[in-house]
Amino acid sequence: MKTIYLDYAAATPMDAKVTAAMQPYFSQKFHNPSSIYLAGRAANRALEDARGSIAQNLGAKPAEIIFTAGATEANNLAIQGVMKDFPECEVLVSTIEHESVLAPAAIFNYHMVPVDSKGRVDLQKLETMVSDKTVLVSIGLVNNEIGTVQAMPDISKILNKLRKLRGSKGRPLYLHSDCAQAPNYFDLHVSRLGVDLLTINGGKIYGPKQSGALYIRAGVQLQPLILGGGQESNLRSGTENVAGAAGLATALSLAQKKRSDEAKRMAKLRQQFIAGLEKNIPVAIVNGSAKHSAPHIVSVTFPDVDNERLMMELDERGIQVATGSACSASSDEPSHVLSAIGLSDKTAHSTLRFSFGRATSEADIAQTLRILRELTS
Amino acid sequence: MKTIYLDYAAATPMDAKVTAAMQPYFSQKFHNPSSIYLAGRAANRALEDARGSIAQNLGAKPAEIIFTAGATEANNLAIQGVMKDFPECEVLVSTIEHESVLAPAAIFNYHMVPVDSKGRVDLQKLETMVSDKTVLVSIGLVNNEIGTVQAMPDISKILNKLRKLRGSKGRPLYLHSDCAQAPNYFDLHVSRLGVDLLTINGGKIYGPKQSGALYIRAGVQLQPLILGGGQESNLRSGTENVAGAAGLATALSLAQKKRSDEAKRMAKLRQQFIAGLEKNIPVAIVNGSAKHSAPHIVSVTFPDVDNERLMMELDERGIQVATGSACSASSDEPSHVLSAIGLSDKTAHSTLRFSFGRATSEADIAQTLRILRELTS
Repeated sequence: MKTIYLDYAAATPMDAKVTAAMQPYFSQKFHNPSSIYLAGRAANRALEDARGSIAQNLGAKPAEIIFTAGATEANNLAIQGVMKDFPECEVLVSTIEHESVLAPAAIFNYHMVPVDSKGRVDLQKLETMVSDKTVLVSIGLVNNEIGTVQAMPDISKILNKLRKLRGSKGRPLYLHSDCAQAPNYFDLHVSRLGVDLLTINGGKIYGPKQSGALYIRAGVQLQPLILGGGQESNLRSGTENVAGAAGLATALSLAQKKRSDEAKRMAKLRQQFIAGLEKNIPVAIVNGSAKHSAPHIVSVTFPDVDNERLMMELDERGIQVATGSACSASSDEPSHVLSAIGLSDKTAHSTLRFSFGRATSEADIAQTLRILRELTS
Repeated sequence: MKTIYLDYAAATPMDAKVTAAMQPYFSQKFHNPSSIYLAGRAANRALEDARGSIAQNLGAKPAEIIFTAGATEANNLAIQGVMKDFPECEVLVSTIEHESVLAPAAIFNYHMVPVDSKGRVDLQKLETMVSDKTVLVSIGLVNNEIGTVQAMPDISKILNKLRKLRGSKGRPLYLHSDCAQAPNYFDLHVSRLGVDLLTINGGKIYGPKQSGALYIRAGVQLQPLILGGGQESNLRSGTENVAGAAGLATALSLAQKKRSDEAKRMAKLRQQFIAGLEKNIPVAIVNGSAKHSAPHIVSVTFPDVDNERLMMELDERGIQVATGSACSASSDEPSHVLSAIGLSDKTAHSTLRFSFGRATSEADIAQTLRILRELTS
């Protein structure tokens, strides 16, 4: 039985080029980048090359890139890092942010900006919710469960306007965006997005798991979470993972190189899948935004169907999909994202996420549609 | 020119068995361990197998092992994690702890327990320094710069005595040990060491960089640093790095299997090196403890020699050694460890660290001695 993996939003296989990029740093060029003999300096150069490559892909300066062990750590560094200096202030997050944004925000004074039924952040509401005390707004570019894409440049414009009203001596007002799901399909130039902080995740872009980076615009002040030898400009201590950095850089470059073609190909697959659902399973409801969606994520509600059971039955037939985000370790609670767009607990428990990737073909979609019809009829 | 790497305390090459153990999880078994289809559960099983193997090597229960991205993160989790619940209380650390212990301790009320001129913690002093407010004592088993080994069981006994005096309703009094440098040569059974928390580091035991684990005795309460999906019993959120966990487990098992033979072999090399120094460069002074030393670390002061220059000259001749710890990113300050054992700044700047490992041979030591004599005469 052929396996059809449709859970690329949860994990991606490492690209062979990524493995190849990491390999030299395992057992040959394994030296500590802080060592000052020649081989140590070479390890450091490899680390800085990786940093430079990531910076270039984001339109940033190398010194603005901090390596972290994954996106969760990067999101925590962004939010805890900014807010620790402003414990009396506020952070705004959307109601559909990832747990790794919501949980650190909840340590501080935080408010949640609502989204509409398609998962788009309510921009007018956002503008009214920014108070004098708001120092950070964190809104992800692509939602990991329903695929909705936010209008980052518009959000950035609103914050710029409010920032100007504060004047140069006022509190800062930073915009952070968790872009873990974005690099395979979207332009991530930080000036075009208009962000001050941006999270990258290796594990979702065919790179190494627990590799990640945080873009921190020059001038943004952060407190570190992990203290020690002062690596990564004192923002992430610990011996650097050169192999991981090289792997992440290679993965991001590949993703950005392929993104235009892959976005088109995914959009077609998405269209094929949605059209097939409409034809074969007309009761099925596609969640999220038709207009503003990442091309690789389709959230589908199958009314009155138990999603866990359907997922298991698909698995038995070789099709791997998600009941929700895989990012919450074995939680039985309904997804906060689906709740935020207005789904009842019951409807949420009838919802599956299908997410496509580099190996997904039209034939895979057709086969998935066939089996879905069989299982739900 | 043959390269002689004598900086194993800074970094170790990945063992081929470790690379092989990681490989399946890069591109084949890459699934998210939180996914509940078969392949996701298999990834989770691999993670739990790694946890079980590490637990077994430490004489611990699997649930007592938390994977972290390296030892620095594990030390931070131990110290910040315990102290966050007791902000008004105190943590004790020795004066020769690693930066990744000192820096998080310094966020809280902390005191430093002095060491003698050999680098051994003053046990009587330690006992008097534990106050009613002390909830955590953090003392590394093997110092990374001078190799001194601490009497953990004796330290544990002292704390047990004081703990009993507090009674069952008193504040906790935990013992944490950073064992990053220890697994290649020492028994790490947590009950024999008598610790409540213990840090393991993949990057120093021929395992993956930025892999690590924290042993947390059942019942010890910690706050997480990195929040999100609740992975690792809610103590370290973020998609788990199964490849890294498998690599770490394999590295620790190998280290523990080889440790007895390797400790003997290293002790001989150390003896050969020190005897050679005494004969060839009688002005050289070996720092640390002759009686209580890790077998793989030799700290040597070459009076009136500039250590950085000597290090560079050795490098030119293919011999890689450290001027101090490689763990402090490019700091020019004299080592706090050497200061703590009484060396002046000038003497510290005449000190090199030689550290041996699996590929180090008698011929390497002989060659190093020859070149050292040449360069210092």
